Amino acid sequence: MKAELIFSGTELLLGQILNTNAQYLQLELASLGIDLYYEVTVGDNQHRLMEAIRQAMGRADLIIIGGGLGPTDDDLSRESLAETLGLPLETDPKALVMVKEFFEQRNYPMPGSNLKQALVPRGGRALENPLGTAPGVFLEHSGKIFFLLPGPPREMKRMAQDHLVPYIKQKNKDQASIIFSRVLKVCGIGEASLGEKIRDLARSANPTIAPTAKAGEIHLRITAKATDETEAVRLISGMETEVRQLLQGNIFGTDDQTIEQVVGDILVSRGLTLAVAESCTGGLLAHCLTNVPGSSRYFQMGVVAYDNRWKTEILGVDRELIATKGAVSEEVAMAMASGIRRLANTDIGIGITGIAGPDGGTPEKPVGLVYIATDDRGDVQFWKGLLPGGERTAIKEFTVQTALVLIWRSLRQE
Amino acid sequence: MKAELIFSGTELLLGQILNTNAQYLQLELASLGIDLYYEVTVGDNQHRLMEAIRQAMGRADLIIIGGGLGPTDDDLSRESLAETLGLPLETDPKALVMVKEFFEQRNYPMPGSNLKQALVPRGGRALENPLGTAPGVFLEHSGKIFFLLPGPPREMKRMAQDHLVPYIKQKNKDQASIIFSRVLKVCGIGEASLGEKIRDLARSANPTIAPTAKAGEIHLRITAKATDETEAVRLISGMETEVRQLLQGNIFGTDDQTIEQVVGDILVSRGLTLAVAESCTGGLLAHCLTNVPGSSRYFQMGVVAYDNRWKTEILGVDRELIATKGAVSEEVAMAMASGIRRLANTDIGIGITGIAGPDGGTPEKPVGLVYIATDDRGDVQFWKGLLPGGERTAIKEFTVQTALVLIWRSLRQE
Repeated sequence: MKAELIFSGTELLLGQILNTNAQYLQLELASLGIDLYYEVTVGDNQHRLMEAIRQAMGRADLIIIGGGLGPTDDDLSRESLAETLGLPLETDPKALVMVKEFFEQRNYPMPGSNLKQALVPRGGRALENPLGTAPGVFLEHSGKIFFLLPGPPREMKRMAQDHLVPYIKQKNKDQASIIFSRVLKVCGIGEASLGEKIRDLARSANPTIAPTAKAGEIHLRITAKATDETEAVRLISGMETEVRQLLQGNIFGTDDQTIEQVVGDILVSRGLTLAVAESCTGGLLAHCLTNVPGSSRYFQMGVVAYDNRWKTEILGVDRELIATKGAVSEEVAMAMASGIRRLANTDIGIGITGIAGPDGGTPEKPVGLVYIATDDRGDVQFWKGLLPGGERTAIKEFTVQTALVLIWRSLRQE
Repeated sequence: MKAELIFSGTELLLGQILNTNAQYLQLELASLGIDLYYEVTVGDNQHRLMEAIRQAMGRADLIIIGGGLGPTDDDLSRESLAETLGLPLETDPKALVMVKEFFEQRNYPMPGSNLKQALVPRGGRALENPLGTAPGVFLEHSGKIFFLLPGPPREMKRMAQDHLVPYIKQKNKDQASIIFSRVLKVCGIGEASLGEKIRDLARSANPTIAPTAKAGEIHLRITAKATDETEAVRLISGMETEVRQLLQGNIFGTDDQTIEQVVGDILVSRGLTLAVAESCTGGLLAHCLTNVPGSSRYFQMGVVAYDNRWKTEILGVDRELIATKGAVSEEVAMAMASGIRRLANTDIGIGITGIAGPDGGTPEKPVGLVYIATDDRGDVQFWKGLLPGGERTAIKEFTVQTALVLIWRSLRQE
């Protein structure tokens, strides 16, 4: 099955919104084995939207239109689809109930303009939107399948999960061929080295394996086509075993797992606690760690010791050490790690110091130089790196990603 | 002048990359007054890329193609443009020097495949890429203007600023009509109330004014069309004065300014210092504040007191207070603000406590309940809010944005 994505919204073409819906739907379609050859964005203009629909009908089976389902005059997706297909728009009684209920539950009076959101091209069906006023639309016509989804990302995702994904899975089942995939998350190895290690595997036609580089990690997606789930899982597992042999110690997780989640799971399972002392990363490591639900079970405390005075007064780093070695040094990073561990009475302490720029660099200690130290129950290690690019936020992000990899490695060696 | 954007890359259609280049170019084109009616994404497929180019030539004057300039076989933008126009590809001697220099400067041997990056359709010209190996391409042909830009965002932006934007500005000058715009950044008012306040202004045809809602703030873009810069600035200033009168105390900045920058500028100009104590936001406030270059001049320290024990032991919050009022209470937020201010000996202290979820909520204190307190040289205030949605990271982000608005308001009242 071939799909085409159409997005409707002048605000998209003006750049006022970053189109994260596109990526979300692309990933869903890819993981379901649907081929996507074109993605088109048009403004709130019925003529151009109709042209895009007509063109998509000439080259795709499944046409997904995002946005343009709101109550105002410039929301034109229903109207454009109906007119392109020569169908009248009719009020769907179930959709009318959905729209009215949305306002009733919130104790708001419903503006009359919202009535148009209950319209559906004849033969179509409204899709429930539990998070907003705009029902979606599903329609099979002229041998094509149409899904109209709302623009707000939360509403779109929910509707895609509730209606679009199950529909495609059902279709895939009918076709007696299904597509499964699994992502292995890799750290601590460069893209080129990884490419060489998996070169032979990358030639496989089924399952396929493809890397995508992210900040500080690489995602390896294994995708299998098979007649049933058991066969797909068998194909993927075979490839996964080979990859794991090749990349021993570099795979930290699978699918939706993040490294902070994996670290958290290990800490919980061993009953260990953690505290962090940050300088150049300014709280980002604590932020990432506490993004994990339930992190209060192991994350005890974070200190952002931006001024050197607090490295000494709060973390107990020797003033002399800072004076002789400099605040950005392996010695101070290690003293910070041990200091926060002692202060918060945790099993593990992390210390980070570096130069995030744009100012503060010297020829000996340039912007991008960072030290990360871990004190794991008295075993103190440090990592030194010079991060490329020189952009402040990128240096912070890469440093934090590296720190998480170091904690994970320290924990998994046991 | 009408423009069309074409992006080329199978990784884009597979959702492996969020297309931030699209938004960047859309914003640039909008601010230059260029109409953009279509944006199309195709995979690494010469047939489909050529079809997209042909179609764009039928409806736009300026065609920008992003991506597909790399050294590998699936990079096809040069080839597709040349073949669509029936032009031969020729080695541009200047481009060859650029590609070779890139490798020489880095002391790498140049792989032979990079030679193809020096190819340009006859009549075209290579555009310098100081940040990568892929030169861009500029070509005027068949009455159309073509820009081929590289895919990596840093390289694309640099090339757009160095070549595309100056080219369009020059064209605009020739047309004796220029477009200027200015963004006013608004906080502390809802989108609906703002819409009512500026309803009359929103009817103006030149300059125009349009709001875009962002997390916790609204951006108001004023855009003027005029014969020269003086006239455009006059139009914008007139509208800006009216808006400022309507929204007194809600406009925190303009154009690229962020609220953390504005707060930082005020702190620097008054010689004030700041420290923060966070619980539910887990370090995100410290992270945002330290994203500003030079923030070490005023940001002294952050403490993420996740476990209540550290609220008492480090921040000096009364154990009794936590026991009687609860860790999530206005009293504890205020004690945290004063505690961190005392500890770090700063002018201002911020304390944040709340329930970020997904667990830990009760009927009296549900997920999303947050307290933010400020201690500004002894004047202690608090803000209480129940943030909608219930998603952990969204609650953290909205809380931090609100805290920054509160600091800003506290500082500007003086």
